[in-house]
Amino acid sequence: MEVRTYPEFSTHYPLLLKTFMQRPVQLYPDQIGLVYRNHTTGAYQRFTWAQWHARTCRLANALKKLGVQPGKPGEPGDRIGTMALNTHRHMELYYAVPCSGAMLHCVNVRLAIEHVLYTITHAEDKVLFFDDVFLPMVESIYDRIKDTVKAFVYMSDQPGLPESRIEPLYDYETLIGAEEVQFDWPYLHEDTYATLCYTTATTGQPKGAMFTQRALYLQTLHLIALASFNNDPQTEQPGEDNVPMITTPMFHIHAWSQPYTYVYRCAKIVLPGTFTVDGFCDLVQTEKVTHAAVVPTILALLLEYEDIDRYDLSSLVSLGVGGGALPLGLKEKIEQRIPKMRASSGYGMTETAPVSVTAFIKKHMRDWPKEQLDQVRVKTGLPVPGMEVEVLDGDGVLVPRDNKTIGEIVVRGPWVMEKYYKNPQKTAEVWYGDWFHTGDLATVDEEGFLTIVDRMSDVIRSGSEMIPTVLLENIIATADFVLEATVVGVPDPVWGEKAMAVVKLVSGSRKEARDLIDFLKAEGVEKGKITKWMLPKLVAIVDQIPKTSVGKFSKRLIRNNLGKFLAKAVEIKE
Amino acid sequence: MEVRTYPEFSTHYPLLLKTFMQRPVQLYPDQIGLVYRNHTTGAYQRFTWAQWHARTCRLANALKKLGVQPGKPGEPGDRIGTMALNTHRHMELYYAVPCSGAMLHCVNVRLAIEHVLYTITHAEDKVLFFDDVFLPMVESIYDRIKDTVKAFVYMSDQPGLPESRIEPLYDYETLIGAEEVQFDWPYLHEDTYATLCYTTATTGQPKGAMFTQRALYLQTLHLIALASFNNDPQTEQPGEDNVPMITTPMFHIHAWSQPYTYVYRCAKIVLPGTFTVDGFCDLVQTEKVTHAAVVPTILALLLEYEDIDRYDLSSLVSLGVGGGALPLGLKEKIEQRIPKMRASSGYGMTETAPVSVTAFIKKHMRDWPKEQLDQVRVKTGLPVPGMEVEVLDGDGVLVPRDNKTIGEIVVRGPWVMEKYYKNPQKTAEVWYGDWFHTGDLATVDEEGFLTIVDRMSDVIRSGSEMIPTVLLENIIATADFVLEATVVGVPDPVWGEKAMAVVKLVSGSRKEARDLIDFLKAEGVEKGKITKWMLPKLVAIVDQIPKTSVGKFSKRLIRNNLGKFLAKAVEIKE
Repeated sequence: MEVRTYPEFSTHYPLLLKTFMQRPVQLYPDQIGLVYRNHTTGAYQRFTWAQWHARTCRLANALKKLGVQPGKPGEPGDRIGTMALNTHRHMELYYAVPCSGAMLHCVNVRLAIEHVLYTITHAEDKVLFFDDVFLPMVESIYDRIKDTVKAFVYMSDQPGLPESRIEPLYDYETLIGAEEVQFDWPYLHEDTYATLCYTTATTGQPKGAMFTQRALYLQTLHLIALASFNNDPQTEQPGEDNVPMITTPMFHIHAWSQPYTYVYRCAKIVLPGTFTVDGFCDLVQTEKVTHAAVVPTILALLLEYEDIDRYDLSSLVSLGVGGGALPLGLKEKIEQRIPKMRASSGYGMTETAPVSVTAFIKKHMRDWPKEQLDQVRVKTGLPVPGMEVEVLDGDGVLVPRDNKTIGEIVVRGPWVMEKYYKNPQKTAEVWYGDWFHTGDLATVDEEGFLTIVDRMSDVIRSGSEMIPTVLLENIIATADFVLEATVVGVPDPVWGEKAMAVVKLVSGSRKEARDLIDFLKAEGVEKGKITKWMLPKLVAIVDQIPKTSVGKFSKRLIRNNLGKFLAKAVEIKE
Repeated sequence: MEVRTYPEFSTHYPLLLKTFMQRPVQLYPDQIGLVYRNHTTGAYQRFTWAQWHARTCRLANALKKLGVQPGKPGEPGDRIGTMALNTHRHMELYYAVPCSGAMLHCVNVRLAIEHVLYTITHAEDKVLFFDDVFLPMVESIYDRIKDTVKAFVYMSDQPGLPESRIEPLYDYETLIGAEEVQFDWPYLHEDTYATLCYTTATTGQPKGAMFTQRALYLQTLHLIALASFNNDPQTEQPGEDNVPMITTPMFHIHAWSQPYTYVYRCAKIVLPGTFTVDGFCDLVQTEKVTHAAVVPTILALLLEYEDIDRYDLSSLVSLGVGGGALPLGLKEKIEQRIPKMRASSGYGMTETAPVSVTAFIKKHMRDWPKEQLDQVRVKTGLPVPGMEVEVLDGDGVLVPRDNKTIGEIVVRGPWVMEKYYKNPQKTAEVWYGDWFHTGDLATVDEEGFLTIVDRMSDVIRSGSEMIPTVLLENIIATADFVLEATVVGVPDPVWGEKAMAVVKLVSGSRKEARDLIDFLKAEGVEKGKITKWMLPKLVAIVDQIPKTSVGKFSKRLIRNNLGKFLAKAVEIKE
């Protein structure tokens, strides 16, 4: 008698993304799973889970026909690039590519064009799928990527192919339309690489963080556990009947893993193409969207939108804010505009896939008054279950839980990236002493909550002290005359560096630099949140604050154009 | 520059039970984590999470001093036996043993004494921890286990050691009291074996199912995900502020994984020693218990308990029922007694750790009337997310979703056991053709819900047809004059086998065999649930139905004492 034990179907049963995809297809084949709205035409398309899965199978068959090779542990499969917005087609690529064993590389189309080019050639993308809007961008770099990329696939809501010298160029719908609606998703090894995500490269070239099927599977399961542990009295526990809109760009670190958590949860997923305020409001009203996640700078767009009250946004109960601190002032303003909605913050980075810390209400806080709870909801938060997160001082020792000693956030856990693609030196700079080093500075309070005070590269070193710019920014944002604000260090002959606030006022405001300093004294210094020497020595009131490719304030662009900002700045004399 | 990538802290970060233990200790060190009530004296003991963890650390240090060796993948660490009820000490063993690398073997103390002896010697338990109540049992087998077991540890709420010839014999509290309150929990390999669970052995010797740290970790995470996906309008989503009572014996398959899910969830855990109706009611009232899980036969004890109305049981909202089908009639009766509580069913077996299928309300069922929802809640259910479960006919083909074709349930997934300890032949009998074969027979309805109709060994083969006994039992249980019922096959010269119903009536009932058959005709045959030839040909009304070590009806004991039951049986003539 043959004796086998089948570890591949038991103790080593692989943790694969296909498990997420198969759940809604099996439970709810005929229910609407995806709604896509073209942000230019406003046209809607809807797909049942069975339809979406059939299209995903067709795509997997097409990839096979294009010669795409699967990977194995330690050996990446072919890289498949996407230059795409938040569409049903991008969701098909999110599953068809990794679930057939290849590696999904979502090109960050908001990077500088030289960085876009760098990531495609560094990743050696074998096939490049791109939305119609990115045709000019692809054509502009075509001569420098045509030896790397073996096939180009054009994706559009309009039928047919455009005139182009790109070749070979396929039309997505024609390509998948020719394929079978069945695909036998393989039982890959769970260590097969699934995605390649490049950092936004504030200095040097973008670095490619690699994630395995296992890492993404485990992030998803732990995020679902986190949702299940929720104690926040004002936040509904998510269920299968949520209607999430994925507003975070899907070319940006797995769109914060929403394409995985929401598919496994069988929630109807709403896709807005790209974020526009009117598209956002139209989708919330039409689809009764309940959950969304955005970067803080999107909140300012919503606050400025004059037609917001024309829409019924009452279904929206939860807004996750990441990619930057959530200032309490901004939270209060947006919750006044959309009364049933509660905003809370989270933290992560490309290398942590990204979610690693979120504002989490502990159970004994349930009955606290709203004002006190809001103070917790805007903290960076507590580690996601399953992730180890600590704050270490310069000697590698845990900082005290005193809410003021600053250290660097270090992490380790099942979904931290193991290495950068083809870049052992950069890997060694972040992985040492048993921890991944984030380069973010934070304090820890007595309940264990982290508060990010700065990037190590952004913190202002004034004399022997550090001025945490995020702390200043958060206080400034509570001023009702401020729409957006950031703080950067500028050279100073005496102190080394001094702080400059760069501020955009709310429409119609006539406040001046002096008013901002007075506000900071009253709300910051007198309330003990900052000390007097941290006050900005310069205030520049501007029409626009430069932003990065993912919508964060770009301190680098301010520093690179410092003369322009200094020219607008008012010096504060005491 | 040294280049390391730290897979052990990223892509291979091990999935370990210590992660669960550390969460409440870090978040809620000073909150009550465990409440234990001595079921004999009624005395309560309460422990904060920090206190419980300190005791667990002391225990791990004590194990080390006793020479307990950790295992590695493929090579079990020392087996540590427990003969214990649901106490805080058993919860300490549940974590200290596997988290220090050894293998926890919870001896099923309700097995026949020869089977108890067999499991201890087959497991080669190096240390045996036992509750005071099991001293006579240990003494009775001492001579036959003393060469295997190197140390015995006595656990009691009373201080000191009893007179005994057992040696070496340690007192638990003295043993751990001498140790340090710190223990550096190792980063084991996730494939390290954590537990060894013996089957209840309805035929032959018990078989030892082995589970790794990874398997138990993944079961826990998927069960939490399942709770998060919950759509049942009458069941509250669980949160950290649940108060679960672990009524399922902890010597029985990880107590259905509650010691893992509830610790990770940071819920206050209530431990009743062993189940008694008055202890159950006292604990629910005192601790405001919200959740409990029981076998169906416990429900009958609660229904019969005359003093139940003296207690305030209004906190109890959810009762999970497993280890046997939940008859709709029984569900209705218990929900009338405890009005806020909702009972629903689940399914699993020793080899699946155990949870693999649960009654799950799909989202489009939310608005169904209660009667229709209750029909779903008593089905065996849908596969737990992450687990593949199918029903195959004799040719290994999926049965149609017609709610009537019977096949065998097969499973595969991350927490199915890979093999039996030291038993390759029995392993080969259950693992073949890429599936673990459960030996349970079921039908599948059009929504994909399984309904177990029988064990393969219990199904009645009448002519060329199968009579599914569980189906008959479920209908019988809806009769208001029936307290408990089971159906077994007895030899028949014409048909091979025929069905005999063995029934215990509710107190004071004067119904007779004929009434039962009339009831089955009206509720079963006329409503199309069974066909006429399935009707029992014999009905035995008895004072007690024999039960197994885990409280299920024992069909084997009825078959072994068939003459006794036939003597009481009335033959039904048509």
